Amino acid sequence: MGDFMKKMKEDPFANYLGITIEDVEEGYAKVSMEIKGNLLNFHGSANGGAIFSLADVAFACASNSHHQAAVGIAMTIYYMQASGMGDRLVAIAREETKPHRLGVYRIEVLNDKGELIALAEGMAYRKRDKLVP
Amino acid sequence: MGDFMKKMKEDPFANYLGITIEDVEEGYAKVSMEIKGNLLNFHGSANGGAIFSLADVAFACASNSHHQAAVGIAMTIYYMQASGMGDRLVAIAREETKPHRLGVYRIEVLNDKGELIALAEGMAYRKRDKLVP
Amino acid sequence: MGDFMKKMKEDPFANYLGITIEDVEEGYAKVSMEIKGNLLNFHGSANGGAIFSLADVAFACASNSHHQAAVGIAMTIYYMQASGMGDRLVAIAREETKPHRLGVYRIEVLNDKGELIALAEGMAYRKRDKLVP
Amino acid sequence: MGDFMKKMKEDPFANYLGITIEDVEEGYAKVSMEIKGNLLNFHGSANGGAIFSLADVAFACASNSHHQAAVGIAMTIYYMQASGMGDRLVAIAREETKPHRLGVYRIEVLNDKGELIALAEGMAYRKRDKLVP
Repeated sequence: MGDFMKKMKEDPFANYLGITIEDVEEGYAKVSMEIKGNLLNFHGSANGGAIFSLADVAFACASNSHHQAAVGIAMTIYYMQASGMGDRLVAIAREETKPHRLGVYRIEVLNDKGELIALAEGMAYRKRDKLVP
Repeated sequence: MGDFMKKMKEDPFANYLGITIEDVEEGYAKVSMEIKGNLLNFHGSANGGAIFSLADVAFACASNSHHQAAVGIAMTIYYMQASGMGDRLVAIAREETKPHRLGVYRIEVLNDKGELIALAEGMAYRKRDKLVP
Repeated sequence: MGDFMKKMKEDPFANYLGITIEDVEEGYAKVSMEIKGNLLNFHGSANGGAIFSLADVAFACASNSHHQAAVGIAMTIYYMQASGMGDRLVAIAREETKPHRLGVYRIEVLNDKGELIALAEGMAYRKRDKLVP
Repeated sequence: MGDFMKKMKEDPFANYLGITIEDVEEGYAKVSMEIKGNLLNFHGSANGGAIFSLADVAFACASNSHHQAAVGIAMTIYYMQASGMGDRLVAIAREETKPHRLGVYRIEVLNDKGELIALAEGMAYRKRDKLVP
């Protein structure tokens, strides 16, 4: 996972949002992010796009963990609970399918208390390219 | 729409991503964003989370346009085509339902050539609170 | 569309539910179904599965209309309004993308008054097989 | 669960498809169905609408298990693997959230070998009505 983790950690958008890639295994990833002022919406809660983006980084890490380029083609997110300033959110992605042309992943977004903030399911399409040579 | 547009334009996350709110009417919104280096993923394309976030801002503007606080509870996104550095993306959200407790919105994300980059459907839950007093 | 329409009209499940295939063009399909007693749920409304199935037949017709076998891989449905005994529902599917490996379709389910009962988006994966030789 | 199970077992559409309600607990349901000729599509596989309908019955049982009328408002399904004539499919629905106005449920559809055929997530809206007086 060495070169791959390195590549993941250089994702510009993940870095721009302050997302930390904590762990990536085959078909699994755990990432985290702190809700700072720039991630809020005009209601004063964590922005839905920021929460989705955290889930999406976990999804990208897990779906690319087989060292073959995978792109997200569809994703659904259900928001369960609001999150606010100062919360540290964790997103955990797990493969629901065997490695295949199309892969389905479940992603849970949890707050500090382990409560479910959002739940997502993503579908990835694997290309023939190797990700890291 | 004066006070409301002002409120929308102060959304911290939308500003952080460089999203411009171009137009908001009842049940409709148009927003745009330029893909700069900080919005890319590790494959070098526009990050799926950034594209979703643009769609989500359009959704938030359209669903809150009835001056009643609305929160997104579910959203699905299908990615149709990649987008890259320098592209200017536009997201247009339109209400699929009459104003109601639950509202469904379709959001199209288009590139400069008018090609469909992503397509989303979001569901919003309207609270009893007035948004702008 | 001759042979293809014939094949579509022999779909066993569509027939079992009393679904009529009204029109199929390239990337488009219109189908209809009457809500009889066997399609109700225990609340006394049209069953969500029956409504989905109608949308799904329209989706299958539209996505296979390029004479290349396509299978649905993902679908999202939003229910807008209940439907009851005696209603005649129509589902209309339209291609959101150019013919491609992956296709996205929007499906509207309408009642007799033209009101939106449900709205679905489906993604299909096209195989290399020709559908009708 | 006595009266409730009885009500569930009288669902007309579930009966029409030959669905058996095997077990319902608070926030949980298990149902099953055999793929007979009338549930096939024109490709000769189990129809996506039939598979969805099985998942939807499990979802309805689990979401109504708190004895308060709940209606499905949104559902996403991902199809993982084809299923054919003679397969016995089981759908298991589990609550992802605490009983609340809006509930999210995960539904797995498995074949005889325990392989994942489809995976769904549904959102239910609970009304104020008691289901069984």
